[in-house]
Amino acid sequence: MTADYSARIDRARSAMAGVGVDALLLSVGADLPYFTGYDAPQLERLTMAVVLGDGPASLVVPRLEAMKVADVGAIDILPYDETDDPVAIVAGLAGDPRRVAIGDKTWAVFVMALQESMPDAAFGKASDVTAALRAIKDEAEIESLAAAGAASDRVAQRLAQTEFAGRPEKHLASEVRAMCEEEGHDKGWDPIVGSGPNGASPHHGAGDRVIAEGDTVVIDFGGTIGGYHADTTRTFCVGEPSSGVAAAYSVLAEAQQAGVDAALVGTEAQGVDRATRAIIEAAGYGDLFIHRTGHGIGLDIHEDPYVVEGNEQALEPGMAFTVEPGIYKQGEWGMRIEDVVVATDDGPRNLNQSSHELVVVA
Amino acid sequence: MTADYSARIDRARSAMAGVGVDALLLSVGADLPYFTGYDAPQLERLTMAVVLGDGPASLVVPRLEAMKVADVGAIDILPYDETDDPVAIVAGLAGDPRRVAIGDKTWAVFVMALQESMPDAAFGKASDVTAALRAIKDEAEIESLAAAGAASDRVAQRLAQTEFAGRPEKHLASEVRAMCEEEGHDKGWDPIVGSGPNGASPHHGAGDRVIAEGDTVVIDFGGTIGGYHADTTRTFCVGEPSSGVAAAYSVLAEAQQAGVDAALVGTEAQGVDRATRAIIEAAGYGDLFIHRTGHGIGLDIHEDPYVVEGNEQALEPGMAFTVEPGIYKQGEWGMRIEDVVVATDDGPRNLNQSSHELVVVA
Repeated sequence: MTADYSARIDRARSAMAGVGVDALLLSVGADLPYFTGYDAPQLERLTMAVVLGDGPASLVVPRLEAMKVADVGAIDILPYDETDDPVAIVAGLAGDPRRVAIGDKTWAVFVMALQESMPDAAFGKASDVTAALRAIKDEAEIESLAAAGAASDRVAQRLAQTEFAGRPEKHLASEVRAMCEEEGHDKGWDPIVGSGPNGASPHHGAGDRVIAEGDTVVIDFGGTIGGYHADTTRTFCVGEPSSGVAAAYSVLAEAQQAGVDAALVGTEAQGVDRATRAIIEAAGYGDLFIHRTGHGIGLDIHEDPYVVEGNEQALEPGMAFTVEPGIYKQGEWGMRIEDVVVATDDGPRNLNQSSHELVVVA
Repeated sequence: MTADYSARIDRARSAMAGVGVDALLLSVGADLPYFTGYDAPQLERLTMAVVLGDGPASLVVPRLEAMKVADVGAIDILPYDETDDPVAIVAGLAGDPRRVAIGDKTWAVFVMALQESMPDAAFGKASDVTAALRAIKDEAEIESLAAAGAASDRVAQRLAQTEFAGRPEKHLASEVRAMCEEEGHDKGWDPIVGSGPNGASPHHGAGDRVIAEGDTVVIDFGGTIGGYHADTTRTFCVGEPSSGVAAAYSVLAEAQQAGVDAALVGTEAQGVDRATRAIIEAAGYGDLFIHRTGHGIGLDIHEDPYVVEGNEQALEPGMAFTVEPGIYKQGEWGMRIEDVVVATDDGPRNLNQSSHELVVVA
């Protein structure tokens, strides 16, 4: 997807004026590709876009990365050599700003060096400028998210036909990642495969545990298309579920659907969290739902708006976020259902259409 | 590998005293696993170890990650809930420090929030405390690096028997990553496969270009064992090389060996860079060698000591780093040879024993 980077930078300049920021400094993280089309690797060599409120936009980049930067027209590309000082170059471009907004994920070592180079500037976070812009997806962005979601749905369908028992989690994880790429993701990310008691750790990776008959298996997977993320979770059961698992799962599925249904324009983000939580609490599983309901998604896998108690931000058309309640019984099992939902004037649009059932596998 | 984390934290406290740091704050990045055994994911939820010069060491961690943290005895694990404020918790633990050293890769958003919470503290980078400790590998660390290097050597041997022509770079990249895991890496990282003109971009990833007869192909690959990295590059030629490629390659191989041979205890890091560069420059390819000679390697793939002009740090026994000169002819081809070398009292120990020849493949 080639976006209109000039228009995005113009909107950033308007937002900068609104919050009194003179210089926007963007390094690793999703702000950089959003405004420049370039996604910088995590390197000890600084890459940084310098966007001035009333001046040019420049991208300072190590010369040996510069070949990967496409010229999008909106920004001057300034390569530097191995023995140059990129902090001095950035500070020179920034001039003498009163207020600087720096990318939220910029490495501390660069933040502190830039603070030292610009001792009169007040530093704040770039998301004060960028988060509101990025949270509202345009049509092309939503289509990228939808394509990513559809690719993941195809993976979910294949998983229902896959043999689980007797395989280490990490073998299944490799296969899921490969499936993601086969089904259309530019790049799959390393999935979570949490089997049996490992499923009770929501961010378990995938380990050596061999999946066994009777296990529930939480698989949280996806990839990116054009930089936009899919993030889907489905729960499987090797053989028929126990009555305890089945009972909890039906509560979970009801709660997840209530969260999707609550994702209306004008609802506060925390309202979606409350919708899922109310059902899980009423059924007596409240203590086992140990995380927020979801997170915004786009060029970042986690971004604004966060679907969490305390976030009073009202949902707007074009906001995309996950709805992913879970129930985690320590030492025994975990379960989670996760979809990506877009708030629209016609109601919630669920970008994941694969089954919400607890899928029985062999 | 289970290290003696208590001893490492004691050494950190000594180093803190040496540079007048009262509180060491470690978040994402390799300092954290080095001192605590826990490698935190990149998350908007702060994970941070707080090591006091004269007080306890604590690890503040989101509750839903806490299940992944092994209790290594040396550090108190303090989980927090979704609606808690981890910055306030860290600031409370830090007390009222005069000087704070914060992890080099900590996200800007946390650095600035912590600066605001501790307005009287001077902030500096954690590597002022940690880099010198981490740069000298102990015997167990070197054995992990050696095991990782040996696994990569087995991949290099398999690559010599692999068919290249007619395949998109990214298919070959997936296969190389899978080979890394089959040959013993806990986890392979996404390799660089730079074919034909793409090889001239040193940090090219792997794209859709279909490898063709006559291409040189730069493959930069590896993985981790026990968290310790392999990082190896070999160059292949699909069919017999042109005389131009062959001539440049023989210069490159001579330069790389000169770099390895220069890696003696007491030599400055920049001396290794000068050794490779002198040979490439003398042969007239100096303008085509567009990066430093190498970087330290360990729990981070890039860490101290950097093998670059200007680094006057003398090599010490136990320092591990890459020696990886390259020659890059824009629009035509690239070539690089990379090994991991450890400085020892008995001379340089090369952890990569696979052939340095330009390997002709089909």
